[in-house]
Amino acid sequence: MKFPHSFTLKKIASIIGCEYVGKEDFPIYGTNEIHRVKEGEIVFVDHPKYYAKALHSKASVVLINKKVECPENKALLLSDDPFRDFNKINDYFVKFIPQNKLISDDVQIGKNTIIQPGVYIGKNVKIGNDCIIFPNVTIHDYTEIGNNVVIQSGTVLGGDGFYYKNRGSYFERLKSVGNVIIEDNVEIGSNCTIDRGVTASTIIGKGSKLDNLIQIGHDTVIGRKCLIASQVGIAGCCTIHDEVSIWGQAGFASSLTIGEKAIILAQSGVSKNLKAGKTYFGSPAEEAKKKLKELATLKNLAK
Amino acid sequence: MKFPHSFTLKKIASIIGCEYVGKEDFPIYGTNEIHRVKEGEIVFVDHPKYYAKALHSKASVVLINKKVECPENKALLLSDDPFRDFNKINDYFVKFIPQNKLISDDVQIGKNTIIQPGVYIGKNVKIGNDCIIFPNVTIHDYTEIGNNVVIQSGTVLGGDGFYYKNRGSYFERLKSVGNVIIEDNVEIGSNCTIDRGVTASTIIGKGSKLDNLIQIGHDTVIGRKCLIASQVGIAGCCTIHDEVSIWGQAGFASSLTIGEKAIILAQSGVSKNLKAGKTYFGSPAEEAKKKLKELATLKNLAK
Amino acid sequence: MKFPHSFTLKKIASIIGCEYVGKEDFPIYGTNEIHRVKEGEIVFVDHPKYYAKALHSKASVVLINKKVECPENKALLLSDDPFRDFNKINDYFVKFIPQNKLISDDVQIGKNTIIQPGVYIGKNVKIGNDCIIFPNVTIHDYTEIGNNVVIQSGTVLGGDGFYYKNRGSYFERLKSVGNVIIEDNVEIGSNCTIDRGVTASTIIGKGSKLDNLIQIGHDTVIGRKCLIASQVGIAGCCTIHDEVSIWGQAGFASSLTIGEKAIILAQSGVSKNLKAGKTYFGSPAEEAKKKLKELATLKNLAK
Repeated sequence: MKFPHSFTLKKIASIIGCEYVGKEDFPIYGTNEIHRVKEGEIVFVDHPKYYAKALHSKASVVLINKKVECPENKALLLSDDPFRDFNKINDYFVKFIPQNKLISDDVQIGKNTIIQPGVYIGKNVKIGNDCIIFPNVTIHDYTEIGNNVVIQSGTVLGGDGFYYKNRGSYFERLKSVGNVIIEDNVEIGSNCTIDRGVTASTIIGKGSKLDNLIQIGHDTVIGRKCLIASQVGIAGCCTIHDEVSIWGQAGFASSLTIGEKAIILAQSGVSKNLKAGKTYFGSPAEEAKKKLKELATLKNLAK
Repeated sequence: MKFPHSFTLKKIASIIGCEYVGKEDFPIYGTNEIHRVKEGEIVFVDHPKYYAKALHSKASVVLINKKVECPENKALLLSDDPFRDFNKINDYFVKFIPQNKLISDDVQIGKNTIIQPGVYIGKNVKIGNDCIIFPNVTIHDYTEIGNNVVIQSGTVLGGDGFYYKNRGSYFERLKSVGNVIIEDNVEIGSNCTIDRGVTASTIIGKGSKLDNLIQIGHDTVIGRKCLIASQVGIAGCCTIHDEVSIWGQAGFASSLTIGEKAIILAQSGVSKNLKAGKTYFGSPAEEAKKKLKELATLKNLAK
Repeated sequence: MKFPHSFTLKKIASIIGCEYVGKEDFPIYGTNEIHRVKEGEIVFVDHPKYYAKALHSKASVVLINKKVECPENKALLLSDDPFRDFNKINDYFVKFIPQNKLISDDVQIGKNTIIQPGVYIGKNVKIGNDCIIFPNVTIHDYTEIGNNVVIQSGTVLGGDGFYYKNRGSYFERLKSVGNVIIEDNVEIGSNCTIDRGVTASTIIGKGSKLDNLIQIGHDTVIGRKCLIASQVGIAGCCTIHDEVSIWGQAGFASSLTIGEKAIILAQSGVSKNLKAGKTYFGSPAEEAKKKLKELATLKNLAK
């Protein structure tokens, strides 16, 4: 999530009421996810297991619950509860404002784009030229849609991500302040759900085609010219490279990377990174050749 | 389904035109499902296999197609077709009345609750305080929603249950006259479907969090603080105890009981009751440790 | 897709600007899919692997990218790109016309049929008597619904099929110009997606019952009195015969034939034709008895 302009370390520390390590005028430009973070941005970390990853990431500011040594050219925000304070920062900049009409006044819609009846479009949404948005689609705040895009009926773009912290007696939601970006020439089927990023963008790359009833989790990036069949589910923070083909009802755990042109066969359950150009099958998924050999072995044994 | 007040055995028998065994002023308060039935309520049974279960349930009145001995303190309604006559009773008390506006006039909505555009709300719905109902949600008649609940776009609460009797040349639907209850602090993602109870309530317990595209069948009860990932399907009449975690695309057959804090891994297919506190995997699901050992065994054999 | 009246071979050739083999006044009545094509209709074929199948099909006209010998009583349309030219013919006869109101003026709705709020109904839709269309359903152009049909909330009838040609640097969509036919006494649950045929009709046969979140692909035909549980996915061009039962989350690859009264157990992944009257399980699916024996064998080996 980008701030409207840069804010100083001191200002951000004052918003969440915490101490900091670094120059008070250290400039900060936004918040982001660990796998997507860029210079000038904040990540949060609250588990010792991930301290090193966060401190050595591209983040310039680490919101952390331990007084560690500050890496060079970076700054720290010291909090007893980084999760709560990350929410506090995001809340300060992005407010949920209820909307009582189907299409917000500030929507930018390109030429020749058709918006069918029953479509809801939230605030600060941009839609390019030559798109068709079919009936009863929901497009939440800050979604960006390129040119020549088709979104079929009942699909929801930009729902809040499924990301909770277990507080013992209850779950606390990590507020979603990212968005969804649909690039040029993408087509998305009916009744899909593509969640907005928690702080980054969930992206469907140029020319990719999605069938019906597909779930794409928060902050996941789908590359260009991917083909995704019906009822596939991809959890949050995944990176699917270009020209990947995914067949019906396959599922992906969170934070995985799938190499270019990989093929994932129907109903596979993917729990690890997959290599480029190979074909996978099974739950848990492995190389299709191996999996089919295993199935043949078992068939013989049962005889 | 609760009657508006108690009715006598004689009156109910007259509604369906059948004989009865018991005192004519025996009081009846409603109809219910076998796994949820309480004193004063009717269950129906039409297969000898289930006669004993129905006669020894907590039901006070058994609508049955055989002249059996009446258990003490109970009553019988004798019908040649209990399924048809159960529908007849439910039909008598709960009528489907078409509604031509998006939000029924009799809806009770608490303070600070936000209803976004395109939301349909049926008759006799109650929604508590501090809720957000996102665009294009459908909330059917008699649904009860607690405080601080979030329902994301496209989700349908209170659709009719999938429960049919095979009549040989056609299927006959068991009419749905129960409802959906969403307790406090529940959050439900986009494009989920939570069916109303056939006669009881489908319940999502306090503080539970559901991701997108999830199916919850009629009369199923989800406990408190459960976490259910995207594309999970739970059939009707299940009891999921508190703090159960269910990962993506797992499926559950009907009428199962899942013990507290059980963990069901992604894509598991659950066909039996599961114990509390254990982790399960596979289709059909078994203890994850066992299943993983089996998979390793097969991998070795195939080499 | 039926033409409004018959057109000559010469006329169709002029629409796409190609040569032809056959009498110039050879009458053509429409376009169709290879597994559904009838006399007087055009199919297209652009891969040598399928030339023979197309030339020996019931099609009277084959749109083909090779100058082959013309079978007796047939005609050929010779194109360097049959896919593009098939789209061109379909485009010529069926145009997408945007609609700015929820219910098109030309809809035919039978008596006692209830249309609830938030429902979108496209052009040339016919709905029979005694139907209930629940809130927020989307019914696209040319859909035909029989009598006594129930469509629950959020379901989309007639979305465009998922059918693309890989053009190397991009995917090209095969335009959908077929429709959806829902026969008498069918009931469809919430948030299902039933795509229209590419050129034929996607059909749900008389008395079949579908649960929630089900995907039915383009040009698939579901027989009479089938029972399909939640989250099942059936790809395009399948033929499911009468009285088939399919349990939750099962998936079917495209172009399969499933015999009458077959039973497909939950989460099965069907990649081949299945025989009538048998029970199947597993991914890939095989006869349930065999599959269960394999699972038992593996369990023993792992001990």
